[in-house]
Amino acid sequence: MGNVVKQLAVLGSTGSIGRQTLEVVRALPHRFRIIGLAAGKNTDLLAKQINEFKPRFVHYQDTKTQARLTDAEYELLSLEEIASHPEVDTVVMATSGKWGLSPTLAAAKAGKTVALANKESLVMAGEIITNEAKLNGAQIIPVDSEHSAIWQCLSGETQKPTQLIITASGGPFHHYSPAQLKEVTAEQALRHPSWRMGKKVTIDSATLMNKGLEVIEAHWLFDMPFDSIKVLIHPQSIVHSMVEFIDGSIKAQLSCPDMRLPIQYALSHPERLPNPQLPRLNWDTIKDLTFEQPDLDTFPCLRLAIEAGRKGGTYPTVLCAADEIAVELFLSQRIKFIDIAQLVERALEEHQAVSHPNLEEIMAADAWARERVLSFVSGDN
Amino acid sequence: MGNVVKQLAVLGSTGSIGRQTLEVVRALPHRFRIIGLAAGKNTDLLAKQINEFKPRFVHYQDTKTQARLTDAEYELLSLEEIASHPEVDTVVMATSGKWGLSPTLAAAKAGKTVALANKESLVMAGEIITNEAKLNGAQIIPVDSEHSAIWQCLSGETQKPTQLIITASGGPFHHYSPAQLKEVTAEQALRHPSWRMGKKVTIDSATLMNKGLEVIEAHWLFDMPFDSIKVLIHPQSIVHSMVEFIDGSIKAQLSCPDMRLPIQYALSHPERLPNPQLPRLNWDTIKDLTFEQPDLDTFPCLRLAIEAGRKGGTYPTVLCAADEIAVELFLSQRIKFIDIAQLVERALEEHQAVSHPNLEEIMAADAWARERVLSFVSGDN
Repeated sequence: MGNVVKQLAVLGSTGSIGRQTLEVVRALPHRFRIIGLAAGKNTDLLAKQINEFKPRFVHYQDTKTQARLTDAEYELLSLEEIASHPEVDTVVMATSGKWGLSPTLAAAKAGKTVALANKESLVMAGEIITNEAKLNGAQIIPVDSEHSAIWQCLSGETQKPTQLIITASGGPFHHYSPAQLKEVTAEQALRHPSWRMGKKVTIDSATLMNKGLEVIEAHWLFDMPFDSIKVLIHPQSIVHSMVEFIDGSIKAQLSCPDMRLPIQYALSHPERLPNPQLPRLNWDTIKDLTFEQPDLDTFPCLRLAIEAGRKGGTYPTVLCAADEIAVELFLSQRIKFIDIAQLVERALEEHQAVSHPNLEEIMAADAWARERVLSFVSGDN
Repeated sequence: MGNVVKQLAVLGSTGSIGRQTLEVVRALPHRFRIIGLAAGKNTDLLAKQINEFKPRFVHYQDTKTQARLTDAEYELLSLEEIASHPEVDTVVMATSGKWGLSPTLAAAKAGKTVALANKESLVMAGEIITNEAKLNGAQIIPVDSEHSAIWQCLSGETQKPTQLIITASGGPFHHYSPAQLKEVTAEQALRHPSWRMGKKVTIDSATLMNKGLEVIEAHWLFDMPFDSIKVLIHPQSIVHSMVEFIDGSIKAQLSCPDMRLPIQYALSHPERLPNPQLPRLNWDTIKDLTFEQPDLDTFPCLRLAIEAGRKGGTYPTVLCAADEIAVELFLSQRIKFIDIAQLVERALEEHQAVSHPNLEEIMAADAWARERVLSFVSGDN
């Protein structure tokens, strides 16, 4: 290890995880260098990032103006080209939604180390990606705080665990009754009690869909059966997850709810680096860590996700796509909060699934689910 | 690894840790074989254990009748001879008090793996024992639940931690006022809320002296400065200790308060073995894990222990010896609960310490402290 500078490509650099990744790199410039940056449509911020980090490879989605964003010298490449470029040591996959899928696969095929924050990749194509990673010696490293916690707890253990216990904050509507949930607004749902995250993830946290997607991710990342993955509500967001071993011993990972820690550990492991910007838990003020079972009746998205994960095939893709559209509809005030789960459930029920799908079949299921959910709402069904 | 049968010597087999070690061996006979047993004066139980486990080497303290205890064939050896015998793979050091010191040292000199439950060895002679262990390639493995937790959390980590957080149940008198503490009886003090242990340790838990001894042990076991070892009261005794790393990440080990787990892990590590007798945490019933700072004014033994550990030399020996006598005096109702700390403090104040003591100087300090505490009480001072 020593003081080798790791060359990073950050795909999705203008999103929440992308920006926090750059904060980590900014704090530790002697250890990490940005050589690739990719963003969606926020070219203003991307231009600033390019000027600051001077990456060699750049991509952005706004295809109308593929004009140069800044005077800095860089090469315009596709997401897949950056993700698989020989000079990239670690790809931080921080794009949101299905856009992460193809570059994640490209990185896996190129045998890269992939710090994976994009949930959809593993949820939609877990089988394909983990197979390609195995085949090509790629390493998929978790960035999500929960999966990072599990990964940290597994460190040094020689045997497979017996149970993963994924914690969930419960979101802003924890303990709300079904009647109360009917009335909640997008504004309320976007006020997450403990984490700063993008809009989509924040709504998914409020419905517990996010936790369901994490269960599916954990299934693929740690090769664990769904029966051995448990979800516990832990409103303080201090215990980020736990792992139980065959002798009954449990390890937990704790820290302040700040994504920069799991991002940094994904980049620095097995080393840990001092970073004065990372907050530390203060045991003078922590009095109580509470735990409770999730309420699957009031928050059906968690149940739907676990069921879709268990069934496999194209079901998790439909789950993801239907949820993405439903969340957009909720954010634009076209549906109510509780409709999100209903639309997702209806799409799953109607879906004619394909087992062990290839990429085309996954993308077809994705397109079908999006269209179908929109049609439910437009009454065109 | 595989299915090699480890040959164990259990020194102190009739005490609480010794008996629980034999429970573990009884549950896992394909992995562990008892080849040495040693006890103090409880020769009745020792005889039963000899008949059951058929050890090749035996020792007992009751020197009056060195007659054979049973018809089984065994060789009578000294504690030191058993602890260093070439056929012993792991020595479980479960004797209580200073009797553990000399056999622990013999095992360290013989390069053995020592599963160390005897607190006094490291508290009194931490410097000598850790030096001998290093010199002879012996491995000192913790059996105490707290140190086992720390050791488990350190597994796979490549860097020294920044902080050890040792948890304490707080004992039966947690939240008692100084006035209430004046009136507590031995019977009350022996009712520990979460652990089944021997009498001495149970009283030491009530005074928090036990936690202080554990801080000193942790200092030697993990080569950590006293400023980086913190004590937190955690009445549920589920989080057995925590470790903080340089990036602010904390790992904790959790399990039911049952000594058989850390005993088993000390014997099986790095493997973990299934043992249906070990209880598992049930997250349907765990609602709350609480933490608070220890009250060093009401429970001065913790402060005295940490101070003695910091000063080093023969101070920790005087702490141990004075405490042992004071606890005996309390159990025989000759002093009050709060007198324990006062007698220990007075002995420490009067002590003329020796730095980097050899074994003779340690034993001399031990004898001096015992006599001195008795003299305080008899008024002969």
